[in-house]
Amino acid sequence: MRYVSIERNGRAVLGVRNAQGDIDVIGEESLESLLARGADLVAYAKGQAVRETVKDADARFLPPMARPTKIICVGLNYADHTKESKYEQPDYPTLFLRLHTTLVAHNAPIVRPKVSDSLDFEGEVAVILGKGGRFIPKDEALDCVAGYAVFNEGSVREYQFKSPQWTVGKNFDNTGGFGPDFVTADEVPPGAKGLKLETRLNGEVVQSATTDDMIFDIPTLISVTSEAITLEAGDVIVTGTPAGIGWARTPKLLMKHGDVCEVTVEKLGTLRNPIVDER
Amino acid sequence: MRYVSIERNGRAVLGVRNAQGDIDVIGEESLESLLARGADLVAYAKGQAVRETVKDADARFLPPMARPTKIICVGLNYADHTKESKYEQPDYPTLFLRLHTTLVAHNAPIVRPKVSDSLDFEGEVAVILGKGGRFIPKDEALDCVAGYAVFNEGSVREYQFKSPQWTVGKNFDNTGGFGPDFVTADEVPPGAKGLKLETRLNGEVVQSATTDDMIFDIPTLISVTSEAITLEAGDVIVTGTPAGIGWARTPKLLMKHGDVCEVTVEKLGTLRNPIVDER
Repeated sequence: MRYVSIERNGRAVLGVRNAQGDIDVIGEESLESLLARGADLVAYAKGQAVRETVKDADARFLPPMARPTKIICVGLNYADHTKESKYEQPDYPTLFLRLHTTLVAHNAPIVRPKVSDSLDFEGEVAVILGKGGRFIPKDEALDCVAGYAVFNEGSVREYQFKSPQWTVGKNFDNTGGFGPDFVTADEVPPGAKGLKLETRLNGEVVQSATTDDMIFDIPTLISVTSEAITLEAGDVIVTGTPAGIGWARTPKLLMKHGDVCEVTVEKLGTLRNPIVDER
Repeated sequence: MRYVSIERNGRAVLGVRNAQGDIDVIGEESLESLLARGADLVAYAKGQAVRETVKDADARFLPPMARPTKIICVGLNYADHTKESKYEQPDYPTLFLRLHTTLVAHNAPIVRPKVSDSLDFEGEVAVILGKGGRFIPKDEALDCVAGYAVFNEGSVREYQFKSPQWTVGKNFDNTGGFGPDFVTADEVPPGAKGLKLETRLNGEVVQSATTDDMIFDIPTLISVTSEAITLEAGDVIVTGTPAGIGWARTPKLLMKHGDVCEVTVEKLGTLRNPIVDER
């Protein structure tokens, strides 16, 4: 099942993709709410009547979840990306957090901030949890996964490196593309293994990798994180970006007003965001 | 006005301190809800009838806010603490985030995790916003402050330094002491200037400083952060710890089962937490 959140008459509604790729609107309950109450997301959509169908081209998308309980990001999770950075490869996941104020929907603009022109792309796979806990064993971790989505972890590099902590550079408003589809786990290989990930800037391929290249795979990320943090249904883990970021290039390739950035992950879909300057 | 959240008959209730330091219960609306709707927190308490009075010694405290909209922490914000660390002093605030799952109430245990014995204290002042925005000028920033509270930013040092990002070491469950009182801004000097901050471990003074020693003062933290992030009513900014942390000592002084850690900030009160091992 592929869920989307779209806006209709000023309200957020929940839909599912039909065979044509268009959106069958099925209700107003949010994905967050469904996840929090442990709904079976495959059965749920089947049990709802279709209220209307909206063409993909006409849809005004919202992030699949507007205020996830947590957004836990993983840095340095592809070896070739770590090599292009100034960091050594750590033997523990490099975790940092994003705020809901960073989230941007499919087709909505990723905003290049007033204070810096160093806005960069990072194509990634996001995992959304349907079940949480502490000390989740690695071999049970995939039971906690409700689904997956595409993420573009827009990063303001200058601010990322103003202090030892990346947080501010990862938390500018409207820099984190998310969606369009929340794809239930049954539609994807276990742990989202073997999926091709590609980022394109103005049509040119700038990142190309497979999720098999992750250093800490999804079960490991869930299990290790849960040794520290109570994970909850609705938590999002953004699993890291492969090589090719603009900041590591000579000359640097940074996103500017009028650009279009797309991230495609096999079986998950394509997230497209125009870039606009903050007014 | 000094607000507290306590548990009565299994429910969270809101109270204010009376002249005896005991708690007059005035209702069930949370501080988060009051902040979100922009209530005048000085007038609000005066307009409520007292339902019952609970002795401070009998109160079962909750964190003043259970799920703040954001918890933005500042590292390296006291020069003498930066000197005891391995970092250079950055000329921009060192921001990182905490999750609500880390919060612990006054008198409740801070938990030393199973996976590490490197649990350290960090006495700090937390600022709670009553109004948010972007690009908040420094000279208007204090208008956004609803109040202040004491925070103990318990840190699992081994995990803080397992990767380049401190986040996991700052986000173990039940390591962030918060409270007991939310003190409205009118009871404190503007920007919480000139307040003595002291941390004691088992009665011994381990940190002693004044809030005047902050490198980035509270108006600067609010203004600079708002250049990147939309701040909201209910956001918490935890302003950094002075020198004296256990990890920087020879030998290291780490917290263990049976210890009691107290943080006192002048005019804000004393936050007391016993330390227990995770079961």
